[in-house]
Amino acid sequence: MKVKCIVSYDGSQFSGYQVQPKKRTVQSEIEEALTKLHKGNSIKIFASGRTDANVHAVGQVFHFETSLTIPEERWPYALNSLLPEDIVITSASYVDEEFHARFDVVKKEYRYIINQQKTQDVFKRKYCFHYPYELDLHSIQKACSLLSGTHDFTSFCAAKTEVENKVRTLYSIDVKKEGNDVVFSFIGSGFLYNMVRILVGTLLEIGLGLKSFEDIPAILEGRDRRLSGKTVPGHGLYLWKVYYDN
Amino acid sequence: MKVKCIVSYDGSQFSGYQVQPKKRTVQSEIEEALTKLHKGNSIKIFASGRTDANVHAVGQVFHFETSLTIPEERWPYALNSLLPEDIVITSASYVDEEFHARFDVVKKEYRYIINQQKTQDVFKRKYCFHYPYELDLHSIQKACSLLSGTHDFTSFCAAKTEVENKVRTLYSIDVKKEGNDVVFSFIGSGFLYNMVRILVGTLLEIGLGLKSFEDIPAILEGRDRRLSGKTVPGHGLYLWKVYYDN
Repeated sequence: MKVKCIVSYDGSQFSGYQVQPKKRTVQSEIEEALTKLHKGNSIKIFASGRTDANVHAVGQVFHFETSLTIPEERWPYALNSLLPEDIVITSASYVDEEFHARFDVVKKEYRYIINQQKTQDVFKRKYCFHYPYELDLHSIQKACSLLSGTHDFTSFCAAKTEVENKVRTLYSIDVKKEGNDVVFSFIGSGFLYNMVRILVGTLLEIGLGLKSFEDIPAILEGRDRRLSGKTVPGHGLYLWKVYYDN
Repeated sequence: MKVKCIVSYDGSQFSGYQVQPKKRTVQSEIEEALTKLHKGNSIKIFASGRTDANVHAVGQVFHFETSLTIPEERWPYALNSLLPEDIVITSASYVDEEFHARFDVVKKEYRYIINQQKTQDVFKRKYCFHYPYELDLHSIQKACSLLSGTHDFTSFCAAKTEVENKVRTLYSIDVKKEGNDVVFSFIGSGFLYNMVRILVGTLLEIGLGLKSFEDIPAILEGRDRRLSGKTVPGHGLYLWKVYYDN
């Protein structure tokens, strides 16, 4: 049987999602818990994609094969009792054998949260990027409209990114103020390496007036990483939701 | 000159507020930073009161004497640059020589936050008590009305509490739902050892129907710790605000 799980994790104490020798990663912790549950039979999981060190997830999705016949609604409890406290399975369901957590992704939502309190909010220091500078949200919103749609995002991914086709579609980009926070939401067909963090870095520079929203078309057309803004830190980033058909 | 500071801290990594030999405490970290700033001259701070291990503060207040002539608004920056990331000075001001952070307290506000999400919210695991059980908030509110006012709170403090006079005044107790959280707020003249945590433990038992709000008068009159509810964990508790005259 194939199980699909939704998992939330606090990325602070992980060297990212993917297994790496001698590093604490989300994947290795989950596989270890599953292997324990399967009495030592090694279980491999397949996620919608990776996340980097310090990056969080509210709704990461993975699947795995099991021979156990645990009722759907008991899977989260069974796994959470074996997982460390910074990983929580929030739901599980049995799915078709054809389902694949990575290949079947239709779209993904990432959020990036900055906190604008004058002094650092101690309770959010690992969960938001502290950025206490005045931002022109109106200009940022105009830049967001220019970034939505289908574009070659070469200027908005890490220079060393090896994937060839850098055309992606951003279905929506939203920015909203929530108390002392500013929350950026990106829903897209797929995201290149560091894409959200470079998009946010660029939007913040526009918000400060260091760049103009009118620069966006030229930045996109230039296809050069040096034209866009700085990469903001990982700890403000959340893989929020992964969408599949049905 | 005397400086009054407001400080916020994440209690997770501290053995409480007060200096203890070989333990990491909030007081010792702040005194160490201040002593560094005063080129090795040892500085002692005086807070509004202690907080226990894992208990947080949004608005703890302390004062100290200084010979430095740093402008008021620069004190937070000067100190924060020397403090660990789980302590943040949010404001500072010069005050009269007569001011005392502990003896001049007029009232204090504590908050206690429970999170009712079905599975643990990983981002709040150190900042809320996870309590995913259905609560009758109406009964809890009725119990709150019966607890407000001036009472002998012997039944609501740790049995070993040594202070003799256990009469305190609760000016207000509020309970409100905020998304998946339930936030309890207590404003009072003063609080006995573990008082807020025992009050919340009792209110939760009333919310579950294990106790009735109608039991409150008898619990108060009985002056016996065994009559009230369990002590809830420290990590849901916040010293929210300390009030002084002016």
